[in-house]
Amino acid sequence: MAETHSRRRAALRELLAGAGVDAILVTDLTNIRYLTGFTGSNAALLVHTGGERDTVFCTDSRYDTQSSAEVPDLERVLDRASAAALATRAAAARRTYGRTGFESQHVSVEQHESLKEGFGAVELVRAPGLVERLRTVKDDTEVAALRAACAAADRALADLVAAGGLRAGRTEREVARDLENRMLEHGSSEPSFRSIVATGANSAIPHHQYGDAVLTAGDFVKLDFGATVEGYHSDMTRTFVLGEPAGWQRDLYDLVHRAQAAGTAAVRPGAEVSEVDAAARSVIAGEGHGEHFGHGLGHGVGLHVHEAPSLATTGVGTLSAGMAVTVEPGVYLAGRGGVRIEDTLVVRDGEPELLTQSTKDLVAL
Amino acid sequence: MAETHSRRRAALRELLAGAGVDAILVTDLTNIRYLTGFTGSNAALLVHTGGERDTVFCTDSRYDTQSSAEVPDLERVLDRASAAALATRAAAARRTYGRTGFESQHVSVEQHESLKEGFGAVELVRAPGLVERLRTVKDDTEVAALRAACAAADRALADLVAAGGLRAGRTEREVARDLENRMLEHGSSEPSFRSIVATGANSAIPHHQYGDAVLTAGDFVKLDFGATVEGYHSDMTRTFVLGEPAGWQRDLYDLVHRAQAAGTAAVRPGAEVSEVDAAARSVIAGEGHGEHFGHGLGHGVGLHVHEAPSLATTGVGTLSAGMAVTVEPGVYLAGRGGVRIEDTLVVRDGEPELLTQSTKDLVAL
Repeated sequence: MAETHSRRRAALRELLAGAGVDAILVTDLTNIRYLTGFTGSNAALLVHTGGERDTVFCTDSRYDTQSSAEVPDLERVLDRASAAALATRAAAARRTYGRTGFESQHVSVEQHESLKEGFGAVELVRAPGLVERLRTVKDDTEVAALRAACAAADRALADLVAAGGLRAGRTEREVARDLENRMLEHGSSEPSFRSIVATGANSAIPHHQYGDAVLTAGDFVKLDFGATVEGYHSDMTRTFVLGEPAGWQRDLYDLVHRAQAAGTAAVRPGAEVSEVDAAARSVIAGEGHGEHFGHGLGHGVGLHVHEAPSLATTGVGTLSAGMAVTVEPGVYLAGRGGVRIEDTLVVRDGEPELLTQSTKDLVAL
Repeated sequence: MAETHSRRRAALRELLAGAGVDAILVTDLTNIRYLTGFTGSNAALLVHTGGERDTVFCTDSRYDTQSSAEVPDLERVLDRASAAALATRAAAARRTYGRTGFESQHVSVEQHESLKEGFGAVELVRAPGLVERLRTVKDDTEVAALRAACAAADRALADLVAAGGLRAGRTEREVARDLENRMLEHGSSEPSFRSIVATGANSAIPHHQYGDAVLTAGDFVKLDFGATVEGYHSDMTRTFVLGEPAGWQRDLYDLVHRAQAAGTAAVRPGAEVSEVDAAARSVIAGEGHGEHFGHGLGHGVGLHVHEAPSLATTGVGTLSAGMAVTVEPGVYLAGRGGVRIEDTLVVRDGEPELLTQSTKDLVAL
């Protein structure tokens, strides 16, 4: 992994050169994990454009052993006030760190005030979102973790269905716990987010919090959940019917299914994110349900379950090969029920790679 | 609850007057929950010193129904860009909001740049940590939730022990899952944090991440975990021995037990937080283990599992009646094992109120 992290830091250096800075102080822990492999809760990283020699990692003494194993390839400093310690260090080598960027999308106004003091005569400049930009395109290590996370979620769902875990009489809460335990059995370290289990009319609430509602024959049951492997998340939604689907349920399901396929077909390198959203949305709007699809089509997935890019009407930018994104259209009929179908995909030249592989055919239980 | 939230906003207004501002823009979601009861994921709140009339809550249309139920007592605006919408509103009523504070401990440098634009001629000033200061002292509603969370954790641990769940042959991971499921059964909505289950030499790592290590006869087993009720967290650590304790294990346990009692005895209104830390630390240092207790004695607990005040050597300030804090000394012998004993307490006139009530006597399993 040391080579992977070194490659990522090299890619960051190219962006730093473009941003006109000598170095950057990285303080977002997810970005530090991406650039170094460190998984602790206190760290800062000073990446210099010149190379690894003036690149310094800092954490506190609790993480001495852990960081020497996870970050064997960088100079390490131990200090509880990690960012301040690196600021002081840069201030003492002003020629080397003359103009240093900081993660202004993450650093609070108060933190900035104290960093400015610490950096002394070093010019501290806003450099927002550089590592996040790199993180949108996944390397092989990352895709492997995403595949494993998606596979854990697929297997957990298959087990749940095979065991009769989706049945009338259970509560949403029971189903959520059952599903989350099964993900743990398949290698997930923890759920990617609070699972959504929504039955009957609750399925029409896009982000319903599971509760004591009881699954009942005739209900839509919507499950939106994810597994975590090596810090990488999966994200998948499937909607079932308990018993024989009614005509309106078949129609609604079929509509969302077609919209999801249209969105997926639009996922390719160079596509405008807003066009991908439109490809699915137009299918739904074409049948008069545009106002019942009130959220964006999808989002990037990686070390955060929601990250760039945003596949939405208002989204800006294009897809690149290697980006991992969700495609998740939904139609929600308040008081009756709703359907959402969501996959996690990797953008590839040609067809996208489908990571969540549970069937999208309508399953009646 | 509306009355409780109104009382909290009134308390904030007194702090605003002291800070010399006409209003404050609250953007931290935990602070918004505290002040209004809103539990969604997008909101902003403009609290005016003058009263509820110029106090405005904003969320987006996804939360229309939810926010009308949770925040029935304030003017509501629906806008996806919640903070920006309130900024624009303040800019249009500059006489009312002439000098407005913002949560500079929370707002990023980038967000600040766009807020400054939105507020136009309104003077936007740093006003860090005001709501956090209020949150340190818990009202009755909060203490009730903390009690329920601590009781859920106590019951889960009792069930785990009674069921023989702490036994040689199980992995740390299995124990963690078992314990977390039992907390859910006792009313916890989710674990307060990733549970710590550390067996044998792992117990000497203060924040060990549970893994596949197998519990073995003779081991210390350290459990640090918490439940969540109504958004409020519990935090408790207990350390067990599997089988007959060795002499060094009894001695170590006894030392930490005495230190924990000394720390608890020092918890009273008016005590300097650093003195409370010292009360426990001096017991440990007195037996030559000062260097094996590398973290602070405790922290506040509430809507965040870690919040102000910090009971540490470097902590500043005094305790007040109604604060909820942990007392959690530990001694860690690298490569051998460690003991930590932690309670969640409420500061009261006289003795503190003990919320986590599991026995602190040495339990050999």
